[in-house]
Formats: sequence, structure tokens, C-alpha cells
Amino acid sequence: MMSDPSQLQLAPNGELRHFLTTEGLSKELLESILTKASGFLDSKGDLIAKVPLLRGKSVVNLFFENSTRTRSTFELAATRLSADILNLDIQRSATSKGETLMDTLWNLEAMHADMFVVRHADSGAAHFIAEHVTPNVAIINAGDGRHAHPTQAMLDMLTIQRHKQGIEGKVVAIVGDILHSRVARSQIHALKTLGAAEVRVVGPATLLPKDIEDLGAKAYYDFSLALRDCDVVIMLRLQKERMQNALLPSESEFFRLYGLTSEKLALAKPDAIVMHPGPINRGVEIESAVADGPQSVILKQVGYGIAVRMAVMAMAMSGQRTNQAGPEAPQ
Amino acid sequence: MMSDPSQLQLAPNGELRHFLTTEGLSKELLESILTKASGFLDSKGDLIAKVPLLRGKSVVNLFFENSTRTRSTFELAATRLSADILNLDIQRSATSKGETLMDTLWNLEAMHADMFVVRHADSGAAHFIAEHVTPNVAIINAGDGRHAHPTQAMLDMLTIQRHKQGIEGKVVAIVGDILHSRVARSQIHALKTLGAAEVRVVGPATLLPKDIEDLGAKAYYDFSLALRDCDVVIMLRLQKERMQNALLPSESEFFRLYGLTSEKLALAKPDAIVMHPGPINRGVEIESAVADGPQSVILKQVGYGIAVRMAVMAMAMSGQRTNQAGPEAPQ
Amino acid sequence: MMSDPSQLQLAPNGELRHFLTTEGLSKELLESILTKASGFLDSKGDLIAKVPLLRGKSVVNLFFENSTRTRSTFELAATRLSADILNLDIQRSATSKGETLMDTLWNLEAMHADMFVVRHADSGAAHFIAEHVTPNVAIINAGDGRHAHPTQAMLDMLTIQRHKQGIEGKVVAIVGDILHSRVARSQIHALKTLGAAEVRVVGPATLLPKDIEDLGAKAYYDFSLALRDCDVVIMLRLQKERMQNALLPSESEFFRLYGLTSEKLALAKPDAIVMHPGPINRGVEIESAVADGPQSVILKQVGYGIAVRMAVMAMAMSGQRTNQAGPEAPQ
Repeated sequence: MMSDPSQLQLAPNGELRHFLTTEGLSKELLESILTKASGFLDSKGDLIAKVPLLRGKSVVNLFFENSTRTRSTFELAATRLSADILNLDIQRSATSKGETLMDTLWNLEAMHADMFVVRHADSGAAHFIAEHVTPNVAIINAGDGRHAHPTQAMLDMLTIQRHKQGIEGKVVAIVGDILHSRVARSQIHALKTLGAAEVRVVGPATLLPKDIEDLGAKAYYDFSLALRDCDVVIMLRLQKERMQNALLPSESEFFRLYGLTSEKLALAKPDAIVMHPGPINRGVEIESAVADGPQSVILKQVGYGIAVRMAVMAMAMSGQRTNQAGPEAPQ
Repeated sequence: MMSDPSQLQLAPNGELRHFLTTEGLSKELLESILTKASGFLDSKGDLIAKVPLLRGKSVVNLFFENSTRTRSTFELAATRLSADILNLDIQRSATSKGETLMDTLWNLEAMHADMFVVRHADSGAAHFIAEHVTPNVAIINAGDGRHAHPTQAMLDMLTIQRHKQGIEGKVVAIVGDILHSRVARSQIHALKTLGAAEVRVVGPATLLPKDIEDLGAKAYYDFSLALRDCDVVIMLRLQKERMQNALLPSESEFFRLYGLTSEKLALAKPDAIVMHPGPINRGVEIESAVADGPQSVILKQVGYGIAVRMAVMAMAMSGQRTNQAGPEAPQ
Repeated sequence: MMSDPSQLQLAPNGELRHFLTTEGLSKELLESILTKASGFLDSKGDLIAKVPLLRGKSVVNLFFENSTRTRSTFELAATRLSADILNLDIQRSATSKGETLMDTLWNLEAMHADMFVVRHADSGAAHFIAEHVTPNVAIINAGDGRHAHPTQAMLDMLTIQRHKQGIEGKVVAIVGDILHSRVARSQIHALKTLGAAEVRVVGPATLLPKDIEDLGAKAYYDFSLALRDCDVVIMLRLQKERMQNALLPSESEFFRLYGLTSEKLALAKPDAIVMHPGPINRGVEIESAVADGPQSVILKQVGYGIAVRMAVMAMAMSGQRTNQAGPEAPQ
């Protein structure tokens, strides 16, 4: 029983006050995130020096499932905004003493935390917290189950914008385990909204959910076919535990069919870029020659990820304040 | 073989230089803590922006037993004073390499730590460190065994002061497991010193220590009787492991006799407030309707807890400096 | 297949850009580290207030083996330089998801980390990272296997310089488990380069590596003989697990032969100082009367350790920047 997330994450004046999903956000808002993020990069695409936008604000990293990499990028982003960070190991906290999760969150709010960065294994967890638990704390979704990973999707958009001079009119292939990916759905929404010409999803039938074309993507089982005229190839991480579930052929069979090699990449446009959310499985979904090659922008994505996280954190903190205080100059 | 703690925690000029216990501290000193803490709150009772009182100071969180909530509140309080924080996981540190605890503490002192926030399962641990190990480091007791939890007691005093317009003349009931509570003793001392008219301790005979009336409290086995004319009802957290020790009837029996329900609460004064140190066991010591009801100030306590911790940290740092440097302007 | 570390850790203009080992560094450079470190101490040898030398820089603590004490000193040093710190628990990070260590490090570099403090059980790990993985991130070796622990060696040099008015001409004994010590080699190199008159290594034959005299030290099996005319006695920590390996006699036998007692110490010069890297095993390698006695400077070493770590961090950050940016004013 959840309300429309696109409404939930906006203040009445249209500003972002939570960042839960790319779904339902307008082209203007997504572009404003990219513009804000670009403002944290210099002409070479490197991060500029720290800014004081969140000075004195308390950001709590609430990671209900472990993800050192994602937690680190949010911690670095918050630090670059001059916020104070509290990392909470939820497993060790009061919830283990019989306290309900809602009580834990209310307590954190009562400690005057200004923002929660939430990572949870259940789809909709961040959404639930923003709607029903602590609506006056800015909530940033750092990945919820299979549902969404919106900051990852937006860093991908920033990568395409910077390396392909815009998203409008581009042909993008998303390759691998679409079914279990929390980022593929977020990517498709953002790509369609920002005007990509075509979004192709590629993988074995067992890993391509039937309703994926409802989102506006086109399903391909043949990787070679899907690569034709591609501007952007986004490889997904293969979660090896799926192998045991008989959803997948062997690792080598998967690599033969859906692994990105130099030969395969030659089927895309000559100036196509290769992306991957990391961590990469070398030799499983991507060949080292491609991962480390001239068309790969995988490591650039990491830096952009910090810029994008800085952008949504700064925007949500500002929108949340505006929402609570009535019309006043945002921070 | 410990000296008088009220002397130990004061500098010769009477300033606080450690904060170990509320016992033996004068009414003036307790009031000065409340005044200092109130200065960190705005007119609505919210925390004001960060202050630079501990800028450049190193606070070490020395938690010998895990308490994420208490650690977090001290970390946030230190951050709001602009201190630098070092969280030490004592179990993993050099003490596991055969080093004595005293050597570990001396080393931390030699690293120019300015303050230790100490949580320990043994009564008297913070006191021992302040007296025998590192007297020149400001020691803040964050809970020692069954003995004391003085910052919790002082945040309770601040709560009563703000929500009942003062402590003088008030009737206060403390309800539940008095025997194992590290906070009840600290509360009784503070309430008596600050002029409460009556302090009632309420619980089953197995959980009411025989000597509790020596502290100036009045023991009640009948909760209904104890609630009459009460201005303040402080519920303690029930530690469920006591059940197994046959000290307690069943959970439902306990709730029937000593759980706070709306019906029970109606026996107190109509404007009585309900407090709880958290984390709460809903349906064990308190009903959700009461915990979330209009008379509950449980979540307000959390924010006051940060203000009180800021106050004692700032005061002890200043008193410690005065004590070492001779008469000079406190920080 | 590693290059000359003394070249690897220097920028073309001779500035330090990594700090991996004391080996091969010139007397001038070692002295510049000591001078820089002394600048962070006041006339009494205490640390001065925080300095902004690394403001806005991100230092990542990469501890592949646990060492709370060393990690804490680097964290405090970085804090005193106003850097932002990210502590990474490598065991829990993406390397456990099948990502290679090199990918993890490249990702951290892509997150715009400016410095890695590396502790690793394998000799040469920090060196390998500096040469082959992330040469543009300043690498500080916080201990690699049996190879080196150069910041420990330099803090020992600072201790001798401050308490014996210089290193030139001094007679220094290093006592205990030379074979497994990661610091003894670093110490010998630094002492010889800085002009010590004689470096004696003392221990049972099983713990004195045969090639130790190649480094310029003189081996002694007889502790009493080795103490004659000593200005400085450096006791090493005995790692008790060596006992089981039959490399050592019993603990009491070791103490009888190589433990430092007041009687033994009386054989050195009357103004000799006693040092130990900590954590100390009281009654195993050193008697409490000596560890806590007037000739012990063991706790002073801890504070100097922070000053030395501040010095090499500040110098490497500056040298790394100069190296990348071409000739410009160092930070």
C-alpha cells in the first residue's frame, strides 16, 4: 500500500526531498541532477575541492545489507559536502535488543539526523521509511532489493552525457542478469526519460523478465545482434550464486554467449563506450582486454558516482528544508 | 579501595573535570549542567547548530561492552562540539595481544587523546581509570555495570525540567527492574539533590534491592498505589534475560502487574509525563498507546541526551584544562 | 621483479612521494623527516594544535591485517593534518565478492582517494601497490610482513634525537626477536644512515638471522656484553607464538637471558634510554620496574609516532602532487 513514489520524493514546489527511484521523475528534474553533479567536476572530469553545502548536517549510513563499496562512495560524497557522517552497523544495534526497526529510526531522527542513506535487501524499504516512518528526514535510496539503485542509474546517465555528448538519440544495450539487477530498471527509466533512441536488454531467457518490454526496452537473446549500432554497452555484474539455481548455464558458457570480448565489441559503433557498475568479474561477464581497454569508461564511472551522490544529497537536503520551513531560500 | 568520587570528579576550584556519577555532586553543579545543556537547545527544544567548543580535541570512545545507541549519542554530541572522534573496538585492540588494559590506556593518553568516554560491564571501571590510570584525561562514564549511568540520569532531569517546569516539589515514580538498573541509582541521587518531593521505586520484590530506601526513595510493590499524584513516570527497560533467572514472573504477568497502560496512566496526575531510557519493549513494560501517546516524552529525551552529553563533555574538558594549567580562563 | 625502492619512493626532484622503507633514503631526506616531525611538537615534546596541511584530502586506511594501535596512530595523525579518513575493512569489501585486489585499489583511486596507508602481512605489498597498481596515490607503508615498518623506525630516530641530543656517534642495542621483526631492519638502515657509531643486535642464535651483519650491525648472543657503553636500548616485542615453534626457550628462560631488568640496565651507560615499540609484554621482554622507570621513554615514543606519521604523510602528499603537476609550489 504505497503511494506514488514520484510524488513522495518531491516537495510541493517540485524540489527533490527524498531520492528513492528514477521512476516518474521528469526529464527536467533528472537533467537538473546531472547539471548539479557536473558542477562538482572540473573540465577534466575530476572532482573539485570540498564544498560546504552540508556543513553541520548529520548523515547516517543505514546499511541493512553490507556493501562496502556503495557505503564508501556515499561516505566520500558526504565528506566532500562537509557533512558529518555516522556509520551504523544495524546488525549490532538496538534492533538486536528487541527494539522495532521503526523505533530505531525514530530514535535516530530524535538524535537530529538530517539524512538517512538506506541500503536494504527488501524492495521498497527506502520508500516505506520515507512514507511511513521518518518523512522529515531526507531519505536516499542506496539500493533496495531488486527494485532500484537510482544513484547508480544517474551516474550512468552522467557517464553517457559526458562521454557521448548527451543521451538524446543514443542506442544503449544493457547486458546480463536483468532479472536480478536492481539497477537495470532504474537505468531504463532514466534512459527513456532522457531521450535515448533505443534501450536494448540482452541476456538468456531465464534472466530476462517477461515484462521488461513494458518499460520501453527491447529484449534480445542474441548479443551480436543487440550490439549493432550501439553507442553504449552497459555490462551488468553476474551474481555467481545464480549459477547454482540452474538459472544460468556454466560460467564459461555464459561468457561465450554474453561475455564482452574485443571481437564482440567490434560489432558496436567504433566509438561505443563500455560501462559496468563494478565490481567486475574478469573473464565472466567481461574480458580484461575490454575492461582495461580504450573504450572502457568503467573507472571514470566511479568518480562520477561521487559527483552524482553529492548532487542528490545536496538537492534532497535543500528540498526537505524548503518543504518543512515553507518558502524560503534553499540552502 | 576507591576515594570519594565526588572529590575525584572535581578540580580544586570546584569545576567538573570527570563525569563519573551524580552521587555527591552539589545542587549547584547539577543545575549548571542543566543550564549548560539548555544552552544547546533552541526555544522549541531542538539542538542548535554546531559549536566549536571542542575543536581540535580528540575524544576516544572506549566501549568495553557494545551499546550502539549510547555510542552514537556520544559520537553525535562530540561532533556537535566539533571534536575529532576515535572509535576503538577494544576487543580487537592490543589488549588481545597480551597488553594490559592499563598499558592500552596509557598509550591512548600518550597519543594525546583529551577525553575517554568509557562504557564497561564492571561497576567502578570509569572511576578506577580516572583515579588510578589516566587522571589527566577527562573521563566520562557512559555506563558502568549496575553502578551508574549519569548522563542518562541528567538527560532525565533535563526532560523533567523542560516538560514539568522544574524538578522541585515533583513526585516521580521509577518503575521496573530497579535491581539491575544502572540508571535508577543515578536518577534517585539527582532527583533528591534537585529537590523532588518524592521518589518512588516500583517493582516486584525480587527486583527491588533492600537498601534502595537508604537512598531516599520509597519502595512500592503496588503500581496503582505508586502512580497516585505522580508528576513523572519513568519506565525502565526490562532485560528479558532476567526472566530465565527466575527473578521474574512471565512476560505477560510482568506486563499485567508493572506494564504501563492507558488505564494505569490515568491514575497519575492528568498532566503527568511518561519517560523511558530506550530501547523500549512494546507490550512488555509499556503499551504502544502510551509510548506513542500525548503524555510520552520518550523521543524528546533522545535529543536532550545529546545536549546533556555536550554539556558534560564541554565542562569536563574545561575543568580538566583548568586543573592542569592552574588558574586561567577556561576554554 | 621490483625496482629499486629508494627510486620508487622519490619524485624526480628528490621529494618523497611514497614512504615505503628507510632503505636507500639519504641522510638529508631522513633528517628532513625528523625536522618536519619536530615542527609538530612544542618545546615540551607535546603535539601542537591541528594544522590544515591535508585539509580536503582523503586518506584511506587499508589494513589487510588488523592492527588497532597502528591504525589509530595513523588516523590521529591524519586528523591532526585535517584530512578526511576512510577506514576500510578489506575483509568485508568487494574483494570478498570475487573482485581482484587491483580492481579494488583502482576503484579507490577512482573515488579520488589521495593517500593509502597500507598494512599487509606480505613483505613488499606496499611496494607492489606503489609500483604496479596506483603509483599516483601516495602510499605509506604501515608495516609489510617481516620487511619494513618505516614509520616505527623513524619515530625511534626522533626519540633518540630528542632524548640523546642526536644520533651521531651513539651506541644502540636492538634486543630480542630480530628474525621476525619488521622494524629491526628499518631501524638498522636508519641508524647507520644517520651516523650511529655502533648498532648491536642481540638475541638467541635462532632469532638472529645470519645475514644481519651485512646490514652493518654487530651480532651479540650475550646481552650483558652488548649493553656495555650503550646509549640506547631498544627492546623488541616477543611474539609468543614463536615459542611453540621451538625457536625459543621457555618464556622464563628468555626473560633470564634477554629480558631487560634494572640489574641489566645498570650495565649500560648511566644515562641510557630504554625504548620499546609496544605493546609490551611485562615480565617477558621487559621488567615493569624498567618499563615504568626513569630511563624509559616508551610512552614518549607514542606521541612522537604521531608527529612522524604527520611528517611523512604531509611530505608524501606534497611530493606526489609535485610529481604529477610538474614544478609548482608544494602544498
